[in-house]
Amino acid sequence: MSKSNRQMKLGAFFMIPGHHVAAWRHPESAAEDVQQFHLYKRLAEQAEKGKFDMIFFADGYAINDKLQSAIEHTVTVRPDPLILLAAISAVTTKIGLTATVSTTYNEPFHVARKFASLDHLSGGRAAWNVVTSGQNAEALNFNRNEHLKHGLRYERAEEFVDVVKKLWDSWEDDAIIVDKKAGRFAEPSKVHEVNHNGDWFTVKGPLNVSRPLQGHPVIVQAGSSEAGIELAAKTAEVIFTAWQTIEEAQNFYKNVKGKLSKYGRSHDDLKVMPGVFPIVGKTEEEANEKQALLKELIPEKAGVGLLSSLISYDLSPYPVDGPLPDLPHISEINGGKSRFQLLKDIADREQLTIRQLYQHIAGARGHREIKGTPVQIADQLQEWFENEAADGFNIMPPYLPGGLDDFVEQVIPELQKRGLFRTEYNGNTLRDHLGLKRPLSSFSKEHSIG
Amino acid sequence: MSKSNRQMKLGAFFMIPGHHVAAWRHPESAAEDVQQFHLYKRLAEQAEKGKFDMIFFADGYAINDKLQSAIEHTVTVRPDPLILLAAISAVTTKIGLTATVSTTYNEPFHVARKFASLDHLSGGRAAWNVVTSGQNAEALNFNRNEHLKHGLRYERAEEFVDVVKKLWDSWEDDAIIVDKKAGRFAEPSKVHEVNHNGDWFTVKGPLNVSRPLQGHPVIVQAGSSEAGIELAAKTAEVIFTAWQTIEEAQNFYKNVKGKLSKYGRSHDDLKVMPGVFPIVGKTEEEANEKQALLKELIPEKAGVGLLSSLISYDLSPYPVDGPLPDLPHISEINGGKSRFQLLKDIADREQLTIRQLYQHIAGARGHREIKGTPVQIADQLQEWFENEAADGFNIMPPYLPGGLDDFVEQVIPELQKRGLFRTEYNGNTLRDHLGLKRPLSSFSKEHSIG
Repeated sequence: MSKSNRQMKLGAFFMIPGHHVAAWRHPESAAEDVQQFHLYKRLAEQAEKGKFDMIFFADGYAINDKLQSAIEHTVTVRPDPLILLAAISAVTTKIGLTATVSTTYNEPFHVARKFASLDHLSGGRAAWNVVTSGQNAEALNFNRNEHLKHGLRYERAEEFVDVVKKLWDSWEDDAIIVDKKAGRFAEPSKVHEVNHNGDWFTVKGPLNVSRPLQGHPVIVQAGSSEAGIELAAKTAEVIFTAWQTIEEAQNFYKNVKGKLSKYGRSHDDLKVMPGVFPIVGKTEEEANEKQALLKELIPEKAGVGLLSSLISYDLSPYPVDGPLPDLPHISEINGGKSRFQLLKDIADREQLTIRQLYQHIAGARGHREIKGTPVQIADQLQEWFENEAADGFNIMPPYLPGGLDDFVEQVIPELQKRGLFRTEYNGNTLRDHLGLKRPLSSFSKEHSIG
Repeated sequence: MSKSNRQMKLGAFFMIPGHHVAAWRHPESAAEDVQQFHLYKRLAEQAEKGKFDMIFFADGYAINDKLQSAIEHTVTVRPDPLILLAAISAVTTKIGLTATVSTTYNEPFHVARKFASLDHLSGGRAAWNVVTSGQNAEALNFNRNEHLKHGLRYERAEEFVDVVKKLWDSWEDDAIIVDKKAGRFAEPSKVHEVNHNGDWFTVKGPLNVSRPLQGHPVIVQAGSSEAGIELAAKTAEVIFTAWQTIEEAQNFYKNVKGKLSKYGRSHDDLKVMPGVFPIVGKTEEEANEKQALLKELIPEKAGVGLLSSLISYDLSPYPVDGPLPDLPHISEINGGKSRFQLLKDIADREQLTIRQLYQHIAGARGHREIKGTPVQIADQLQEWFENEAADGFNIMPPYLPGGLDDFVEQVIPELQKRGLFRTEYNGNTLRDHLGLKRPLSSFSKEHSIG
């Protein structure tokens, strides 16, 4: 049983048709359906049946240029996550809907409005995974020669989130009246221009959608670099991280939670939810077989390409069964800095060849891989959850829909039996599920007094 | 009976809760539900039951700054149309889904991807209403001091559409293979960089969504200015126009259809669908009463504001029961030029006061208002349809959901009885409904040979 009444939060983080780079080759994966709604509907319904807090889609604005053989050997098409989650909102009623949208090649007005719209239409279930775009191939799709430097991306991101929140607040909660008789639809004194004038954006407002049902859709973040942690401590409500060991996870947990007070926030205002790549078997043997099959299915070029992409360094010239070459210093990496360091550490620690390293990370991509029976997997999740390493987890099924079915049908009942996870939704909004406060509007009277 | 087998195309063009500026005050309008999904679901299901070709949402990126009392007296909130239509796609199976997205404050990569995603997820039902943003208030939400001049907006729009089509073509129709055994997901020689390098955009591509089910989502346009007509003749497949008289409509029809051959297109490649604002009564008397009620409900400030906005000129300083003041020459108008001319012509022709003019246009906003019994309304639609004034109509219900119900339950059966409208969908995609060819990819071999 759980030591307290505290229960873990669970996100279903979907890459389609699975997180493993060879997932699409798995005999049971829905590789033909990666752009078909019926697959997404089935996944969302299954995740909701499992009482997940939310489903979660990553995103990117280019086919990865580091992955020369990506088009041939991997799945490089993926529907726009906001379009996808809007469609999913119509066939679900409780589960949270988290879309990744970059602050680098978008405009705050559009982003504020799309999430506010999704939040209204879904009955308060929207969340925004705030990311910056770090691939050169993305820059080339948006009128630039090269992508923004890491520091500038985070400066822009911080201002971007600030403008979006102002726009969400531009209609006070009670601004809409609908007095048909008096002919008054809204109270103009409760609708505000935001008049933002910053280094990156000039936005007058107000938004043309009223304040979201949740006040603000939930803010999710993923970066674990220093700039990323600082931004998360200031603005994030869910943080999605990648850690291999409980010690690393505990350090991170303590670090980011410790920074909250600096921004006037408390311990429970931010949920730390590391990624977990589960390989579930009814027996240990079955789990081992599942893992072995996935490793075998990785096309060599796709493996090298994936690894090159994750460390922002081209490994294709080097022998695949040899060690990693000398890599540049982290300060020279203008990509995912934390991911670079994490993979370099694994390679050094375990003395892996390029092939062994890509096989090692081809599923979880730097996140924690846990393998075993439902009891073993629940044990590992419980250990992290009860020892200040995590408030919950983002579950990354290796292949779909089978990998999700395994987790929902086998692991979740085990977590529920231990009192570690809900058996029914207690509220309607994603904030209800996550136990997050509804933010006051920056324009509301209570806020100015408080 | 219809003179030929040709049947009219019908779009259900929704402003929520109705096109009439006072619609929200109507006792039967769903004014409380303007951001609630259940209203949109009901409307979409009703339109699909009526066998409409498509539903259609306008859009804008600001609260109209010409309309000082807009927030108080009118409905100024509206969900993002792509989010809305994505949600609607999940609860409908046949009806086309037309979203307005501006080329002025967006990026081609995002727009191409969102429509391609909607087209895949909806089974080939997406359409893009291409507009330019002409309000100053919109510029102020996107880092600018004033909006782009009319000519520049159209130059940008033309290049924008060009880039979007290239991105839609960047994956050939048969690029995706999904050969699990050989480990080949796609054929790289059938996936193309677009390498667009123009005055407005530099976009490398390819898109990270494969070619839309319809080849290209249907391209809709609304402008009737000279630049608008030229762009429509080059790229539009549906044109949405505003005409008061059959003569004007016939002239326009002839003009735009006549320009098609210049761009290598034929007569049926572009469907002309003027807007129609129907007030349906079981008797003439009932229709008159419905019209009178709507006129009475217009708050004076909202009426003056709406008119000012439509002609891009502030009328608030002038006596509401006096004539229109001397207006600037059309060349000085940097807004909807064709709308300006149309309203000026009505005021001159019918010698209307400001109040009479706003009452006159408060519903249809310059589109054709038709009022009467189902038989009378069908007569008028038939007259335009059979005399080269229209290939179909965009129906603009005065208030919702009642105005749509009237049309579906009373007018459509009358059109069906006359053989003028389908009684069942014959295909699955919006192109099927509209009788539009599926475009070949610019990268496909057939295309280069042909």
